[in-house]
Amino acid sequence: MVILTLNCRTQSLTCVLFDWKKQHLLGKGSVDGIGTPLATASFARSDGRLMSRSAPCPDHRSGLALILSLLTDPAAGPLDGPDGIAAIGHRVVHGGERFSRSVLIDRDVIDAIRSYEHLAPRYNRPNLAGVEAGLDLLPKIPQIAVFDTSFHQSMPAHAFIYPVPYSWYQKLGVRRYGFHGTSHLYLAKRASALLGKPPAECNLITVHVDRGISLCAIKNGASIDTSMGMTPIEGALMESRCGDIDPGIPSFLMDQEGLSPAAMTGILNERSGLFGITGTAVSRRSVLAQAAQGEARCLLAVEMEAYRLKKYIGGYLAAVGRPDAIVFTSGHGLLEAGVRERVLDTLGSLGIRLDPVRNRAPETVDQEVLVSAEGSSVRIYVVPTHEELVFAADAAALLQGTLADHLDHDYPFARADFPAYPANWRPAEG
Amino acid sequence: MVILTLNCRTQSLTCVLFDWKKQHLLGKGSVDGIGTPLATASFARSDGRLMSRSAPCPDHRSGLALILSLLTDPAAGPLDGPDGIAAIGHRVVHGGERFSRSVLIDRDVIDAIRSYEHLAPRYNRPNLAGVEAGLDLLPKIPQIAVFDTSFHQSMPAHAFIYPVPYSWYQKLGVRRYGFHGTSHLYLAKRASALLGKPPAECNLITVHVDRGISLCAIKNGASIDTSMGMTPIEGALMESRCGDIDPGIPSFLMDQEGLSPAAMTGILNERSGLFGITGTAVSRRSVLAQAAQGEARCLLAVEMEAYRLKKYIGGYLAAVGRPDAIVFTSGHGLLEAGVRERVLDTLGSLGIRLDPVRNRAPETVDQEVLVSAEGSSVRIYVVPTHEELVFAADAAALLQGTLADHLDHDYPFARADFPAYPANWRPAEG
Repeated sequence: MVILTLNCRTQSLTCVLFDWKKQHLLGKGSVDGIGTPLATASFARSDGRLMSRSAPCPDHRSGLALILSLLTDPAAGPLDGPDGIAAIGHRVVHGGERFSRSVLIDRDVIDAIRSYEHLAPRYNRPNLAGVEAGLDLLPKIPQIAVFDTSFHQSMPAHAFIYPVPYSWYQKLGVRRYGFHGTSHLYLAKRASALLGKPPAECNLITVHVDRGISLCAIKNGASIDTSMGMTPIEGALMESRCGDIDPGIPSFLMDQEGLSPAAMTGILNERSGLFGITGTAVSRRSVLAQAAQGEARCLLAVEMEAYRLKKYIGGYLAAVGRPDAIVFTSGHGLLEAGVRERVLDTLGSLGIRLDPVRNRAPETVDQEVLVSAEGSSVRIYVVPTHEELVFAADAAALLQGTLADHLDHDYPFARADFPAYPANWRPAEG
Repeated sequence: MVILTLNCRTQSLTCVLFDWKKQHLLGKGSVDGIGTPLATASFARSDGRLMSRSAPCPDHRSGLALILSLLTDPAAGPLDGPDGIAAIGHRVVHGGERFSRSVLIDRDVIDAIRSYEHLAPRYNRPNLAGVEAGLDLLPKIPQIAVFDTSFHQSMPAHAFIYPVPYSWYQKLGVRRYGFHGTSHLYLAKRASALLGKPPAECNLITVHVDRGISLCAIKNGASIDTSMGMTPIEGALMESRCGDIDPGIPSFLMDQEGLSPAAMTGILNERSGLFGITGTAVSRRSVLAQAAQGEARCLLAVEMEAYRLKKYIGGYLAAVGRPDAIVFTSGHGLLEAGVRERVLDTLGSLGIRLDPVRNRAPETVDQEVLVSAEGSSVRIYVVPTHEELVFAADAAALLQGTLADHLDHDYPFARADFPAYPANWRPAEG
């Protein structure tokens, strides 16, 4: 059963191709430059062979067609034809309050996704373009929507309602939705396997670290709170997004500088966070690296990032009670060791202790590693996240009619014997 | 040495009159309706006698003149004449980065306070009107500015810088300042006395609960973080202020509803928080009371308030390490017992435990009470706050040339033998 996962962004898309039943990773691909004069599709087969092809792609439809042409290339493509694909699992960022699990896409689902576009225009619009492209090019192949928001639909009202006029929630959908849900779900299931406890008995704090960062408080296996909110701007300090700030700042700045709402949103999304503090706009990796060299503004930015993560973890400790584990994704690999040290340095008084050697082990780059000290009251893990496994698992389960709610669903990666991904996921032969 | 403290708001002022050296509370007064057709001044002498007088007060100058006429009333006023006042201690909300302690007011100080007006227009403007009125009516009497912000000037950069473009800090003063500083200072000193530890050795989390709510993380006696930020909107969920929300919400709403920055600021200040959630705009007291009766929206609002306070306390536990005590002000007295229970209910796993009986004791309304259980790893106190004691103490110390920095200053209320205020503060005889 070949599953294609698709994550469409404004000017690009990424895809992963699996033979799901055989646990074969067939390869990973991308198309960059959609909507620019020339786009380039590339596909890395998991046997190491790299394919690429360039062509103008004015839209996601032509972008998908271009990557499909690589996948079905007679000489090197992993598929004989597009009909070899059993289902496409689309990442869709915003599923509003309607979708608490993944769904087979039909016109009604498309309309619903479109109705949430105003809540996440930068994401749902290209996600939907990818869905439409898939339906158009491959009308016989089931297409499945896997939402960033659905894992967080278990949050109670006291965590998702904002203290603003209640009519904004009723009329405009202003509430906390949370994002990175597929990553937090994956981390929760892997933690369950690592702890040797059923998912529904696990209390966790999961920390998804990438260009965007979010934390999730998980009680009895379910999300009870998460740091991102109605939009992905809220929460932790991120590469270019501000995270939490005084809610009086946007209107103050708009008033002082004559900025429009759209300009303000743009600054808070793209010119804030680490970029805002340091005045550079290169990457989080570069800020972490420069901080390690002692560059003053980068050091401040990294201290702020860690200090704010520390407060979130403390807040979620209070929300969850005592968690079984705190789980960090591997982020920028070895550069994250210093971040974890800063985040956890004062938590020793609460019994939570890193093992300084394990925390700096090379395995933390791409493997699941226990990094807490012996005797720490809470285990601390580094777990590389793989959202594409959730996209594919949900697509496969929907095809087979076996998809259940997050808590009950038998995710293969929740099992102790799940083979290390991608290390033990071999390509199909021949 | 008679000290008058003055807290001027847009349409009102409150004052407290002390004979400071003798530890006599002479009385408390107010003027309401400044700028309306008729204002009313009232003064309650601490021997119980109530005085009042009405007159049109178009501005704070005439408001101050009206209350002074009561204070010096030949029949019942506590003063023979205005020259009996040794100093006036003015509450000034915003002292920017310049004032880390109280100061004697001169033209230069006035200009500085005015330069921070854009950061707190609703406060510094009337505060300054009171200062100008004092200088105008009582030019020979030293006037002292006591700032809400100065206690928090010890915060490190990683706590006060926001993850927004750094130029906003440099050019516009966008940073965390924090407010309620005089209350947090008072609570820190009282906790030091109650714990029997020097202030500079106390690690605390203080929670100021009133219509506005703020928390402070105190390490070695100094503020290292606080929940209010550049403005008093940030932080805890308050009576009418939102506290923390997704920073994307203001520009989203302005865009969707065509709101101006000023309209947005108004809604976040006056129609959010408990008022926003419940749709009523009566008082926090009424929301707490209705929640106790089971009214659904009020219950949600109260759960949200407590949940958010719980997360702040968890965050500050992580920031401080292990505090010696968590200190709550008495707020709305017995109604706060349920709030404290909700806030602390899951902290038992961190060793922090309320004593349910002590927590509901009638003494928590107006006395200092230890409410933690035996064996709690952190003491929990209820301490009624008295910011006017800080205004008066700083004014008296400046007069005498003895004012030192917060940590070093010998505040009378930091002493174990400080007589219970106001219970043991008797009025002057005759």
